Amino acid sequence: MPIEPASLAERVLKGERRAIARLITLLENRDPAAQEPLAQLYSHAGRAWLIGVTGPPGAGKSSLVDVLVTTMRRDGLTVGVVAVDPSSPFSGGAILGDRIRMKSHAADSGVFIRSMSSRGHLGGLALATKAACRVLDAAGFDVIVVETVGVGQSEVEIAQSADTTLLVMPPNLGDGIQAIKAGIMEVPDLFVINKADLPGAQAAANEIRSALALEPPGDWDPPVLLAQSTAPSLEASQLSEVWQAIRRHREFLESSGELARRRAQTLREEVIQDVTGRLLDLIRREADSPLFDSVTQDLQARRMVPQEAADRLLERLAACLHREEVRK
Amino acid sequence: MPIEPASLAERVLKGERRAIARLITLLENRDPAAQEPLAQLYSHAGRAWLIGVTGPPGAGKSSLVDVLVTTMRRDGLTVGVVAVDPSSPFSGGAILGDRIRMKSHAADSGVFIRSMSSRGHLGGLALATKAACRVLDAAGFDVIVVETVGVGQSEVEIAQSADTTLLVMPPNLGDGIQAIKAGIMEVPDLFVINKADLPGAQAAANEIRSALALEPPGDWDPPVLLAQSTAPSLEASQLSEVWQAIRRHREFLESSGELARRRAQTLREEVIQDVTGRLLDLIRREADSPLFDSVTQDLQARRMVPQEAADRLLERLAACLHREEVRK
Repeated sequence: MPIEPASLAERVLKGERRAIARLITLLENRDPAAQEPLAQLYSHAGRAWLIGVTGPPGAGKSSLVDVLVTTMRRDGLTVGVVAVDPSSPFSGGAILGDRIRMKSHAADSGVFIRSMSSRGHLGGLALATKAACRVLDAAGFDVIVVETVGVGQSEVEIAQSADTTLLVMPPNLGDGIQAIKAGIMEVPDLFVINKADLPGAQAAANEIRSALALEPPGDWDPPVLLAQSTAPSLEASQLSEVWQAIRRHREFLESSGELARRRAQTLREEVIQDVTGRLLDLIRREADSPLFDSVTQDLQARRMVPQEAADRLLERLAACLHREEVRK
Repeated sequence: MPIEPASLAERVLKGERRAIARLITLLENRDPAAQEPLAQLYSHAGRAWLIGVTGPPGAGKSSLVDVLVTTMRRDGLTVGVVAVDPSSPFSGGAILGDRIRMKSHAADSGVFIRSMSSRGHLGGLALATKAACRVLDAAGFDVIVVETVGVGQSEVEIAQSADTTLLVMPPNLGDGIQAIKAGIMEVPDLFVINKADLPGAQAAANEIRSALALEPPGDWDPPVLLAQSTAPSLEASQLSEVWQAIRRHREFLESSGELARRRAQTLREEVIQDVTGRLLDLIRREADSPLFDSVTQDLQARRMVPQEAADRLLERLAACLHREEVRK
């Protein structure tokens, strides 16, 4: 029995888990049937606190999120988790293990955990993930945690569009800190050196602190915390420190007026991403047309220069846009 | 005395170093004056062999390129090097050191070395770098080496648009191998484990080989080589092994007809990138207009849903394209 899109939004608003899961699947599949319920839910979203957690593979993000969720639940908050999963055929085992560990919350109706696959549609992933967070937000969850592997640019962007962004690093910092130093990655709101029982954790924290000391001073100084989310004896105090820092950051954003500015910026970027994605689809479609094959042949035979080819393609796009052929 | 663009192309074709440097600077600054000479040079390019060298920071790419250039010169080949430099204020020291070491070729008229800054124009960098390679190609250099730090996506793309792509890794593989395993980065034509005097080099090579064994078999099996480009006693034989592998790859591409296919694909991608870049500029310009501020306000007040805002922006773009406002 097919679900009517109209009733899907109503059921999400009531917090029905099957309706939430169904709508996120539609979003993940880029099914046009998702658009109407998503539009209906939009005016109900914007109440949840959005936390982005990113970091390199092996930093222990899932374990950290797992323990953080427990901490948040103790504070009486309901939590939605959206985990962007690189779906590697190689790392499948580890990811499966992480998801199984997250099952400690499976029986808790105050927690909703959802993985989203990044394979195959890197371009649309950021939009689909943001939309999934919006669904959970409209469904009434107090906190939404979006967990991404900080490898692909779009995955880093997802985490950076949150209200509070955590960068989780292993004690051997690797390329992540280089990316920040090189200005490629924005400075997160909070650093967590995870697996702090491994050697070098304190040195790593100091390295990050010295790199931060060279940044222009802002109104918020990103704390650099140590955590050990796999050792039950230590987790409580350290993770509570992470949770306190997240709450301090929230208070800072709210009291400074920075929250409204940041959210406006994020919405603006979302619209730009959507438009860019639609145009990229159109460019690919036109570039795959037989007409463009002859352009490529002329280019290769050096009868046409690349600038001319680009002009030709733009003319085609203008004609398509004029005929409103942009797939929504 | 300003240089006439018409004469600039002629002087580049004669191999005049000052003209080459001048035109690459125009490209780097996205100066419209570069377009005419670039178009004039296009029919003269396509003869050089393009080698892309990428890898994480600290893998020793510059040292490897330095020694490779010496090897190529011994074979009587002229070499152009385009080094994409992340211009980090932090890594400035190391980069300066690398460039100074490259000065071993400074007195050699058969070598032209040029750094391109990636700061500030990540979007246009790939196009500017490709254009710089094309200038050196038209100027008659036999081999062009383009060296990029494999951190940003556009930098990886630059290296991957070469005829032969080398991925240089330190013995502690870090995130690079994860990116390949996750399918985010394409498999290069050749792996080099550099700093092979450090522990773990052989294990790293084996790890890559086992990862490759899981890839679908192709016509070219990427060799995994060890190198130690800083130890003068060892460099000769190992680097010659790298150079032999590059030459074998070239023979493979030429004899299999893969070269024509790969270059057609690269040209096509270049045109798509150019068009995408111009459209992104246009999207940013329109999104920065006061008209769009009111859209953002409506979004934030939840009087408008993001899909509607995207439709509005697309309508504006269609109007701009129709009026041919796309900056060239």
